[in-house]
Amino acid sequence: MPRLTQRSRDARRQQVVDAARRCFARSGFRATSMQDIFAESGLSAGAVYGYFASKEELVGTIVEEVVTEIVTGVEAALDAEEPATPDEVIRGVFDVLDRQDGAAATLAVQVWAEALHNPALGELVAAGYRTLRERFTRLVRHYQRAGLLDQAAKADDVARFLTTLGPAFVFQRALLDGVDAQTFHKGLMGFRPPAGR
Amino acid sequence: MPRLTQRSRDARRQQVVDAARRCFARSGFRATSMQDIFAESGLSAGAVYGYFASKEELVGTIVEEVVTEIVTGVEAALDAEEPATPDEVIRGVFDVLDRQDGAAATLAVQVWAEALHNPALGELVAAGYRTLRERFTRLVRHYQRAGLLDQAAKADDVARFLTTLGPAFVFQRALLDGVDAQTFHKGLMGFRPPAGR
Repeated sequence: MPRLTQRSRDARRQQVVDAARRCFARSGFRATSMQDIFAESGLSAGAVYGYFASKEELVGTIVEEVVTEIVTGVEAALDAEEPATPDEVIRGVFDVLDRQDGAAATLAVQVWAEALHNPALGELVAAGYRTLRERFTRLVRHYQRAGLLDQAAKADDVARFLTTLGPAFVFQRALLDGVDAQTFHKGLMGFRPPAGR
Repeated sequence: MPRLTQRSRDARRQQVVDAARRCFARSGFRATSMQDIFAESGLSAGAVYGYFASKEELVGTIVEEVVTEIVTGVEAALDAEEPATPDEVIRGVFDVLDRQDGAAATLAVQVWAEALHNPALGELVAAGYRTLRERFTRLVRHYQRAGLLDQAAKADDVARFLTTLGPAFVFQRALLDGVDAQTFHKGLMGFRPPAGR
């Protein structure tokens, strides 16, 4: 077998991840087998196992991709000359989770339940959360100094709350009436005293 | 067998529900069998089946109890001469979900995953959500008229957001670092512009 270039390897790896994502969206995490993923990806068992040892590794990779995308959005706000407002940053989080016609949200709910009794997956979810919370804490301090958020609050408490807004959106998207990111965001913004009060 | 009074029947029924709740907290919903619940309740299979036909019915009853308790809190605010503030009502929701040392939160995450592929349970969760959202919508309108919330927002959007704050708390309580209701509530309150802005 000819050796693949790094670029071809990366493309194939992504091909497996995308196939797994489609399988999980169609049948759920538990009901999907590695055989389903071989078939969906069009690759052999040997080729797939060259990248991922198990379904758990695949779902871990998908979780990491989503977390990385959200963290990148928050870091962009931290690094910008003129940072996005708190409302814009949160809207960005909802937009990431709204992708794939809700499939990301449905998979997330399944991952949470798995994480309760799968320590490796639980640690992955918790690690993503810690990273995101640390970035949010820095961003909240920044907003507090800039007078955009109330200075009386502990930045870490606010960050903790912000980190769970994604799951709150996911919950509604997956289990209830499939709310879109814009409507959900408007609701959050409406939970405020009128300006000047 | 002597006939039980209605009061004895109610007490026994609650005995079964409480036993199921302990089993689910200890072993998870999936790993708990009806046999476990017979043993934990100290009642015979026949006695338990007189009240509940399945684990699903039991978990449905537990979900209904929690939803009823939350809805009752919101209705108390609606009916009061001097209603609780928006912040106090939300704090009440977190307090209900913080019970039983986090066991309610852990069970909730499992129920969500089950609800994705169990239509009866999914409908029960959705029905509880609709009831709560309807009460929140009325409460938000009330707050808007009283000048406590921004009138520009659609009451239904705000209600939708408020309804997912419970799940947001549950997510953090069950899967992350076991936050308490007070800390989580402070974080929510801190995501606000400073007064007068």
